[in-house]
Amino acid sequence: MKWPSHGSNPQYLYEAMGMKLPDQYLDFSANINPLGPPDALKMKWNDFYKKVTVYPDPYSITLKEQLSKKEQVPIDSLLVGNGGAELITLAARMLEGKKLLLIQPTFSEYEHACRVNRCEIIIHQLEAPDFELNLDGIRQKLRDADALFFCNPNNPTGIHYTKSDMIMLMEECEKHDCLFILDEAFYDFLEDYQSLLPYIKRFPNLIVIRSMTKMFAIPGIRLGYAAGDPATIAKLQNLQSHWSTNAIALAAGELCIEEEAFIRRTQTYIANERKRLFNYYKKQGFMISASKVNFYLMKDPYRKDQFALFEFLLKKGIIPRHTFNFPGLEGNWLRFAIKNSQENEQLMEVLNQWRKHHC
Amino acid sequence: MKWPSHGSNPQYLYEAMGMKLPDQYLDFSANINPLGPPDALKMKWNDFYKKVTVYPDPYSITLKEQLSKKEQVPIDSLLVGNGGAELITLAARMLEGKKLLLIQPTFSEYEHACRVNRCEIIIHQLEAPDFELNLDGIRQKLRDADALFFCNPNNPTGIHYTKSDMIMLMEECEKHDCLFILDEAFYDFLEDYQSLLPYIKRFPNLIVIRSMTKMFAIPGIRLGYAAGDPATIAKLQNLQSHWSTNAIALAAGELCIEEEAFIRRTQTYIANERKRLFNYYKKQGFMISASKVNFYLMKDPYRKDQFALFEFLLKKGIIPRHTFNFPGLEGNWLRFAIKNSQENEQLMEVLNQWRKHHC
Repeated sequence: MKWPSHGSNPQYLYEAMGMKLPDQYLDFSANINPLGPPDALKMKWNDFYKKVTVYPDPYSITLKEQLSKKEQVPIDSLLVGNGGAELITLAARMLEGKKLLLIQPTFSEYEHACRVNRCEIIIHQLEAPDFELNLDGIRQKLRDADALFFCNPNNPTGIHYTKSDMIMLMEECEKHDCLFILDEAFYDFLEDYQSLLPYIKRFPNLIVIRSMTKMFAIPGIRLGYAAGDPATIAKLQNLQSHWSTNAIALAAGELCIEEEAFIRRTQTYIANERKRLFNYYKKQGFMISASKVNFYLMKDPYRKDQFALFEFLLKKGIIPRHTFNFPGLEGNWLRFAIKNSQENEQLMEVLNQWRKHHC
Repeated sequence: MKWPSHGSNPQYLYEAMGMKLPDQYLDFSANINPLGPPDALKMKWNDFYKKVTVYPDPYSITLKEQLSKKEQVPIDSLLVGNGGAELITLAARMLEGKKLLLIQPTFSEYEHACRVNRCEIIIHQLEAPDFELNLDGIRQKLRDADALFFCNPNNPTGIHYTKSDMIMLMEECEKHDCLFILDEAFYDFLEDYQSLLPYIKRFPNLIVIRSMTKMFAIPGIRLGYAAGDPATIAKLQNLQSHWSTNAIALAAGELCIEEEAFIRRTQTYIANERKRLFNYYKKQGFMISASKVNFYLMKDPYRKDQFALFEFLLKKGIIPRHTFNFPGLEGNWLRFAIKNSQENEQLMEVLNQWRKHHC
C-alpha cells in the first residue's frame, strides 16, 4: 500500500485505504491550531485582495523587520520562506551530498529532502514509548556528520527536549564543525519553551527553522522563516526561487506576529484539552506519548497491531495520522492533533465505542 | 550601483537610484494584465478565506484535471508550481552542472538559476533592434549543450518567434539529446499564438513552462505550471518542496482557467493599446522592439545613453524596467508594460515633456 507522506489532505489516505472519504469527517491528522486564525486575519481579508495583483516583496522586508525586533536578531540573519517545508528543502539542497544525522522518528520531510539531494543519512533511533535522547549515542554519531536535523518539540511524538540538552547538542556540533538545523515548528504551543533562536549570534553553525502555519492556522497560504548566521542565510536565499513567499502570506504574517495574546490563549486552551484527553486515555487504558504540544501519539496496548483501530476510526470519519512512514513507529502508533473541545469529545466518544466492542 | 534583478517592487529601484519612491507612481516595470484579474476572482474572494486554514492539495489535482482537459495532455505530464520562477528553479536544479544554452537577451532568472546550480553557460546573443534568431548560430551551439532555455514570446523584447522556428529548434535539440525548456509565460497575450505544448507527446525532450500570473494579473499569489514527458515531470516534482503551491493560488487558478472570454478581451485591448502607443512612438521618433505582446523595448535614438530618460521618468513617477542586467541591452533600452488606456496616456504625456526639453 502507498501511504500518503504526510497528514492533512485526507482524500489521499482514504484512497490508499480503498475507502470513500465520508461527507462528514474530523481531520486529526493536521497539527493546526484548533482555534483557527486570529480574528484580525478574517477582518483584514477583504483588504488583502488588492495584494493579489502586485508582486510580493522578494525580500519580505516588513516581516523581517518585525521578526528582527521580536527575536532581537539582525535582519540579515533572517530568511522568510514558502512554509517550513521550503526552508527544509533549501537547507538540504545546500547540504547536497553531505552526511546528515537524523533523529528518528521525526518529520519525514528531512529524510525526503536529504535523499533527493543524495545525502548520506545516519540514523539515531529514539525508542518508544519514552523517546529519550541518549545524548551519548548522538554524540558518537555526530563525529561523522556534516549536519544534524532536529525537531523540538518533536513531530510526531510531541515530546519536548530541554534547552540544556539542545545547547549540549549545539556545542557538540560546533566541536565537529557540524551544522545544527533545529526545526522549532511547534515551539509556540509550549508556554515555557526556551528557544535556541537567540543563540544564532553565538553559534554560526546553528540554523533555526520556524513555521507560522501551525500556531496561526494558516497552512493554506504557506509561511515560515529561518534564522542563522548571515553568510548561511545568504546561501539559502541564493537557492530560493524569486518571489517564493506569496503576498497574502506576507500580509498575514505581518498581522499574526503581533498576536501575543492569541498565542497565550492557544497555549492555555491546548494545555487544558491535552489534560482532559490524557486523563481519558489513562482511564481507558490507552498508551500515549508524553507530549507537551498540540499533538500526541496514541495506541491501544491491548492490540499488537493498530490497524484495526485505524480502520475503525476512519470508518467513523475520525482521521488520525498514520505512522507507517515514521521509522521506529511503523504503524504501531497513531498520531492525533488536539482539536477543539467538541471535536476532542467526539474522538473520545468514538474511542468509547471501540473499547466497548474491541477490548 | 546594484540594480534590482527584476521589474516590479519599485521601492528597490528607487533605493538603488538614491531617490525617494513618490507617493503617486505608475509601475510600467511589471508585465501584468492591465485589466486586473477576472471579475470572478473578486466575487469569490470571501469564499477563499476558508482555504487559509487547510493544507493545499500537494498534487494540485483539480487544476491539473482542468489543464489536462484544456491542453489535451495526460495529467501525469503536468506539474503545478509556485509561479513560473519556481518551475525554472526546479528545471535548473535538475540540470545541475550541465551545459546550458541561453539566448540573450532573455528573462534573467534562467541564468541566475543555472549559475546557482553550477551549470556551464553558453550564450547565443540576439542583436538589437531586430533580435533575429539566426538559427544556424543556435544550431552550432546546440551540439555542445545539454539543455536550451528559450522564452517565446521573448521577455524583454516582446518578440514572437514562429511555430516553425520552434519546431526546428526542437528537432535540433532532439538530434543532440538536448532538453528544450520553452517558457511560454506570455503566450496568451497573442491572439494567434501556436503553442508547442501539444508537442510534449511527440518530443520527450520538451518542457513547456507557463505562468498564470501575467494574463490573470495574480502575481501576488504565485502560480505556474510545466508540461513535459511524465518521467521528467516526476523528476521535477521530486525536487519540489511539499505544499509548494498555496491553496489561494490553486483556487484562483481553477477559476481563471475557465476565463476564455476574458483572455480574448485582454488580447484585443492590448493589441489596440499597443497600436496606439507604437503610432505615437513612430511619430515622436522613439525606437521600439517589434513586440507582439503586453510589453516592449523603447529607446530615444537621439540619445546614446538612456540613463537621462530613465531618471527623468522616475522623477515623474513613471517606472520603466531598467535593462542593465539584460546582456546585449545593458541599459541602452527601457522596457515598458502596456498598461490601461489612461495610464498609457500619462506615459505619452510625460514623454511629450521629455521631447520638448531633451531633443
